Amino acid sequence: MIDHNSLSRLPAMPEFMPGHVWLVGAGPGDPRLLSLLALHALGEADVVIYDALVSPGVLALATTGAALEYAGKRGGKPSPKQRDISERLIELARTGRKVLRLKGGDPCLFGRGAEEALALAAAGVPFRFVPGITAGIGGLAAAGIPMTHRDVNSAITFLTGHDAGGELPDTIDWRALVQGAPVLVLYMGLAHLARIAEKLIDAGLGAETPAALVSKATLPEQRVLETVLGRAASEATAAGLEPPCLIVIGEVVAFRAALDPDAAPENRARAAEAILHKASRVAL
Amino acid sequence: MIDHNSLSRLPAMPEFMPGHVWLVGAGPGDPRLLSLLALHALGEADVVIYDALVSPGVLALATTGAALEYAGKRGGKPSPKQRDISERLIELARTGRKVLRLKGGDPCLFGRGAEEALALAAAGVPFRFVPGITAGIGGLAAAGIPMTHRDVNSAITFLTGHDAGGELPDTIDWRALVQGAPVLVLYMGLAHLARIAEKLIDAGLGAETPAALVSKATLPEQRVLETVLGRAASEATAAGLEPPCLIVIGEVVAFRAALDPDAAPENRARAAEAILHKASRVAL
Repeated sequence: MIDHNSLSRLPAMPEFMPGHVWLVGAGPGDPRLLSLLALHALGEADVVIYDALVSPGVLALATTGAALEYAGKRGGKPSPKQRDISERLIELARTGRKVLRLKGGDPCLFGRGAEEALALAAAGVPFRFVPGITAGIGGLAAAGIPMTHRDVNSAITFLTGHDAGGELPDTIDWRALVQGAPVLVLYMGLAHLARIAEKLIDAGLGAETPAALVSKATLPEQRVLETVLGRAASEATAAGLEPPCLIVIGEVVAFRAALDPDAAPENRARAAEAILHKASRVAL
Repeated sequence: MIDHNSLSRLPAMPEFMPGHVWLVGAGPGDPRLLSLLALHALGEADVVIYDALVSPGVLALATTGAALEYAGKRGGKPSPKQRDISERLIELARTGRKVLRLKGGDPCLFGRGAEEALALAAAGVPFRFVPGITAGIGGLAAAGIPMTHRDVNSAITFLTGHDAGGELPDTIDWRALVQGAPVLVLYMGLAHLARIAEKLIDAGLGAETPAALVSKATLPEQRVLETVLGRAASEATAAGLEPPCLIVIGEVVAFRAALDPDAAPENRARAAEAILHKASRVAL
């Protein structure tokens, strides 16, 4: 449990004022990965407008008196309702409610927090961002895949597999993407994975590049599929992986053999020794 | 304050077992951005090995009985001691202590969590990653700069301005970096900012590209400097900005006029209206 002595040493929480909107990151799914500030917000809000990627365990932390409104969008369908959501936030705030807009991961990393905040700002409604642990970070940690390692990458690119209309973004320079960072983390990429993999391979990334898919990251239903880029889409289909699914492509995936929390310790040790041995030989 | 009813609805926390090492993200600085799991870990640990980027407010949440050991590295100096830190973690775990390795931001995003975890795995010491809100996410939110907006970017690249030896990483393809994602977030880039900006401009990024520097993000001492790429280094020096300093480069910086939490509401409203008006004209 949380130590109440620790809580008493925290700085005071900001007051959630009536008529304000807080745009809050719910984290990757496991409610224990929520920030303290987000938990405070859930305990104060009059109404919680949540999207599809918010887990039931996080929603359960809202006060029993709070109204819960679903405003989710699923599976890359067109979302004509973004404007409606922003208008709903403004309307609720103007009735003097404490309005919590709850988004999976972080509100500003592919979460459209910017768009809602702009609408609030234009309407003169006070708001605040409460950041969250993005799925790319929390989900990969739960799968035992580090985002960076000095021997592999000094850069990492996060991208979304969906544009506003649910299509693969057409503004991406795939060749530059592949050469710009050795590790790619793809959000909402499951639906278009076959095409994305094709584009990455055409752009020069090897079909044998390690890849991993993490479905329902950090939740009890989490599933991890380790594969390679060229077979990722077909293996994901064969395995019946469901969204939300995070996809990481790059040599950091190979560290999972040593860092997978669900692997047997002796297997992890063997894999870690092999990796460290290889690294020390490269350094010679 | 945190609502104790909310806490009672959380799933049970995993037990911090003697002889285990938890690699914990301390978040960007403000202790209220710590995850619930990290707070639990701080309440249980016998010894906390912390680095330079961990704020005093977070350290204060360790139990009063915990031993605190500093293992930080500052300012891009060579760090021959990474091996010593890993060995110290192993040694402490083998005495049956509950060992908390506390790192600024997230342990696996430029935090060397992977390297320490590999050493622990090879030594047969059980460990766990506890993710944190990385400075790039939490710090930009605090400055009112969204990481993504559908009109600007479907990709974002995080990179570090330091390699293992404190030098600018030499493996970066700057032209690909610039073309691969419209927004760049640079960690530990202040020391080499003049050279980095020069490389980015040589690679085709306009000298007038909006840029912002966020020093000591989320702490009371936070300072934000809005500038453009070509003048970022000289203005940072003139302003006396200190590390840790996060640097974001790209058109998302322009949204700050509408989203800066410290701006006057009427100025934010005016800026937001101008942005929305321009966007609706582009869409016509």
